[in-house]
Amino acid sequence: MVEHSGLDSQCLNKYCHSSSSSSSSEHDKKMFAKLKLSLSGDYPRKNGEILSGQYGTNLLLLGVAMMLAIQGDPSVREEHLLAFVTSLMILQLIWMLWYMLVRDRQKNTRTEKDVHATTCWIRGGLTLLAVLSLIMDAFRIGYYIGYQSCVSAVLGVYPVIHATHTITQVHFLWFHIKDVIQSFETFERFGVIHAVFTNLLLWCNGVMSEAEHFLNNHKSRLFALGYENLTISKVHSEPDCNCTTSTCSLFSRSLFYLYPFNVEYHIFVSAMLFVMWKNIGRTIDLSSNRKRLATKIQGLHVGPILGLLALAGTIGVMVVYITNIEESFQTHNSAISMFYIYGIAMLASMCSAGSLGLLIYRVDHMPPDTSKNPSRQLDTELLCGSSIGSWLMSWCSIVAVVGANSNPPFRWTNLIYSLLVVLEKYTQNLFIVESLYRQQEDGEREDPELPAAPEIFSVTSSLAPPYNGIINQAYETPDRICVSLENEEEESRQVYRCPRKPSEVSLPVRNKVKQPLNIKRKVLKNIAVFLIMSNISLWILPAFGCRPQYDNGLEQETFGYSTWTTILNFAIPLNLFYRIHSVASLFEVFRRV
Amino acid sequence: MVEHSGLDSQCLNKYCHSSSSSSSSEHDKKMFAKLKLSLSGDYPRKNGEILSGQYGTNLLLLGVAMMLAIQGDPSVREEHLLAFVTSLMILQLIWMLWYMLVRDRQKNTRTEKDVHATTCWIRGGLTLLAVLSLIMDAFRIGYYIGYQSCVSAVLGVYPVIHATHTITQVHFLWFHIKDVIQSFETFERFGVIHAVFTNLLLWCNGVMSEAEHFLNNHKSRLFALGYENLTISKVHSEPDCNCTTSTCSLFSRSLFYLYPFNVEYHIFVSAMLFVMWKNIGRTIDLSSNRKRLATKIQGLHVGPILGLLALAGTIGVMVVYITNIEESFQTHNSAISMFYIYGIAMLASMCSAGSLGLLIYRVDHMPPDTSKNPSRQLDTELLCGSSIGSWLMSWCSIVAVVGANSNPPFRWTNLIYSLLVVLEKYTQNLFIVESLYRQQEDGEREDPELPAAPEIFSVTSSLAPPYNGIINQAYETPDRICVSLENEEEESRQVYRCPRKPSEVSLPVRNKVKQPLNIKRKVLKNIAVFLIMSNISLWILPAFGCRPQYDNGLEQETFGYSTWTTILNFAIPLNLFYRIHSVASLFEVFRRV
Repeated sequence: MVEHSGLDSQCLNKYCHSSSSSSSSEHDKKMFAKLKLSLSGDYPRKNGEILSGQYGTNLLLLGVAMMLAIQGDPSVREEHLLAFVTSLMILQLIWMLWYMLVRDRQKNTRTEKDVHATTCWIRGGLTLLAVLSLIMDAFRIGYYIGYQSCVSAVLGVYPVIHATHTITQVHFLWFHIKDVIQSFETFERFGVIHAVFTNLLLWCNGVMSEAEHFLNNHKSRLFALGYENLTISKVHSEPDCNCTTSTCSLFSRSLFYLYPFNVEYHIFVSAMLFVMWKNIGRTIDLSSNRKRLATKIQGLHVGPILGLLALAGTIGVMVVYITNIEESFQTHNSAISMFYIYGIAMLASMCSAGSLGLLIYRVDHMPPDTSKNPSRQLDTELLCGSSIGSWLMSWCSIVAVVGANSNPPFRWTNLIYSLLVVLEKYTQNLFIVESLYRQQEDGEREDPELPAAPEIFSVTSSLAPPYNGIINQAYETPDRICVSLENEEEESRQVYRCPRKPSEVSLPVRNKVKQPLNIKRKVLKNIAVFLIMSNISLWILPAFGCRPQYDNGLEQETFGYSTWTTILNFAIPLNLFYRIHSVASLFEVFRRV
Repeated sequence: MVEHSGLDSQCLNKYCHSSSSSSSSEHDKKMFAKLKLSLSGDYPRKNGEILSGQYGTNLLLLGVAMMLAIQGDPSVREEHLLAFVTSLMILQLIWMLWYMLVRDRQKNTRTEKDVHATTCWIRGGLTLLAVLSLIMDAFRIGYYIGYQSCVSAVLGVYPVIHATHTITQVHFLWFHIKDVIQSFETFERFGVIHAVFTNLLLWCNGVMSEAEHFLNNHKSRLFALGYENLTISKVHSEPDCNCTTSTCSLFSRSLFYLYPFNVEYHIFVSAMLFVMWKNIGRTIDLSSNRKRLATKIQGLHVGPILGLLALAGTIGVMVVYITNIEESFQTHNSAISMFYIYGIAMLASMCSAGSLGLLIYRVDHMPPDTSKNPSRQLDTELLCGSSIGSWLMSWCSIVAVVGANSNPPFRWTNLIYSLLVVLEKYTQNLFIVESLYRQQEDGEREDPELPAAPEIFSVTSSLAPPYNGIINQAYETPDRICVSLENEEEESRQVYRCPRKPSEVSLPVRNKVKQPLNIKRKVLKNIAVFLIMSNISLWILPAFGCRPQYDNGLEQETFGYSTWTTILNFAIPLNLFYRIHSVASLFEVFRRV
């Protein structure tokens, strides 16, 4: 779980602890040996990780247990869950305020930053999502005021705390998410993991409410069509008294259009906080920390045009689907068929785009970027992990189509659609991962002659290494660890400039392929833009109500109502997350190629 | 997912590819630069990992989709699933035979081995489990012969192929599981991941059959008590014709006592194969590869005695529980109460043992072992990951107990039991992880002055490093990569002996604490033995039918029948795996302390 951040991250860390205890009067050799012996004890680090990780997991599981109980038992009510979540948010608030105060006091000591942790545009996007969440909180407060006389006070307290939590958290994200914490490690670890799992729990809660809303809609639709007589779930039913204002139903209806944004906000924040947690006690390699990515937009025509077409088409399909799905049996079926045919066209073009990108990579050999980057690694894991949801759904559809007894008009289009979903995620993941792990081609990229992580050797040997990273500076002149940020940056920039002379062998190779590369890069940028917009389209469809998996009846017939609903409740939120996450990753790809 | 194995593993790899293309006549500098440029392209490696990982995941998901369909739809039958699994096993068989043939031909070329990948006693244990699996196959064949006239031929083919698969796989485990594959990488990756997921699918299949068997038992028990009128699942119902031999019912009854072993066999094999997959293309650091662990058993009294007591008590409790649970309401309840009280005693003593171990570690400071070891990392991840199942179950129980309307006699013992389950896994995980990540204390442990991964620097610099690991040898004298194993081992042993002179500072520190350490180590060994036996006990109980979560009715009342059954079907197999896996990890701890 944690090994990969072990080796190089302990070095500075060890140093930091020891700088207070060892006096500079002792001679060098003894001091170094002592350092290694007494403070290679970073095992509070390993312990801290397991301790805090397990704490967070149990927090989430308790929340999930309460959610599951709400569905089945009248004695466990939504208020209890909200009270629990509210108390977690208050705890997180206190921790964040404490953290910000402490950092504010230590303004003049240098805090290391992990540049990879997040980018401006991700934080911008999150701020937008946070604003939508705040609107949602306002609606919730309005709803509470309307029904004040007959609902629990928790329903009023929750949105107020949630709004405060959102504002503070966005502030935290802007100014502290890149911090690499080196002091109070175990305590900070608990604080950060608490924040991670509080957001995950808020995500789960949002997902549950959303799923229930869709399920209730689906049931009432079936009920209207006279199919089945299912009981509507009680959780989001109307309170017992009348609304004192005129806007209650408006509020409760609008809420469900804001849910998708709120849900994505929380899962994204928890991923970013998780990177912060992984970074605690880590040592940042300044050489890989110094990349500037410029977003160039020359030669971008085909990708954006096709992407806009896809977006426009999606909105058209969505409107037609939602209006037609509640109509007669014939219209219902043709709406589903239309959805699948549209999906096949979209996915096929996305597959081709991804494959084209991979082909270009095969032609254009480039060394991999092996620098340490927990953020990128997490991105890869989340991408592959969240694919599982929609893959499971697709394979279930395939089994259902092949084994079905009935023969609706969309049977075989469903099969092709499902196969393409599997294939599209397969190629897209490959494309994204390969793009993120290739070395960049612009002038700013590091010299390939430079080792990716020089500090590992430089600390353990007594040779003076030619690349003078931050650790070596600290190692050699302990007093300089508290120099100001500007000095340190200038120094290391200067140091890194020295070995960056063009090598005799690599230059001709790069010059030779310079011309065709530009065309390739343009194609890659177009592919990235097209994939971004297609993924947004495929996010919009399920997020705002196009879920043919509920409506087509094929899978339900094969798996039974409760199994299929469980599968969907697991798979659809993961798929939504996958789409938004791949948009973020593809934007990163767009900036890199 | 894969980053941590990136840096140091590409080095040899790069080298290997290039040795064919570059002629030795060119002068050194140019060759090295070319090496780095053209072959730091290990990105087929990254690609190969994602490609094969996604292939395996989809294989598993298709299988899971079929399993889910079997439960709900009469048109998808168990035969279809078995046919699918059989074809996967045949594919794996072909691959394993191909692999063994190729290795056999290359006998005189040296294959690197990862000593950490597995130990003799793990392979021994697996062989035992495999033998029990073979008996199971024999029973299945006997069952098929009895019902030959009316069941599908797949039911006869499956056990035959499974037996062949088991025998070949055990042979593979004994002779090839430690191989670090350096040739045909992408193809081998597909082969190994296919094997991993075939075993995972076989595990899932076993778990499903087992869960269904328990559920059917539970339902028929409820039916006999007149509680509910539930339909018994059709999957393992008797065939339509009469058995032609007299042993059919014996076979089908015995099968379910062998399932637990078969299930553990497959999950363990897939974990080991996964480590092999992670090792593909890796470079082994010989310094950390040279540890010999001796299993000393002096001073072992308290642990084994307490452990044997726990085991004996467990078997007693199991017999009483199974006989009493089908009796009258009163006896039923008292059996459940007895189970919980026994569980509380067990878990409390396990918690204390784990905490004592952690306290000893706090007193006895020891530097962490940061050497690279994918096997250990996987162990840690699996341990924490598989805890989630039983934690979820416990939190659900806690929510159910707190919110329950009824008040059975075991209500509050259930609460304490569930809290202790959470706490016990928490401390045990901490204890195991810390034990595995501490440096060993015997004479064989590496010198702390030696860097953990010297090859990273040694390849990227042109300095001749003092420690001559395998990579450097290859780097300097390319022709020597094909020297025989014995030579290489002797050589590096000799080389490693050189810098291992006692340092002036570390020795007195270690001598000073030598005496009390021995007592501490004895205590730690006793703790490990006690925990091993306790974990075996806690594996036996649910594996052979003591599952009060089905019988106590409290949780079912809160969560509803279908939700609670789903939770148990997810959590119990994970918990069983956790127990067996922690036994293996604790045995490793026992040998290390």
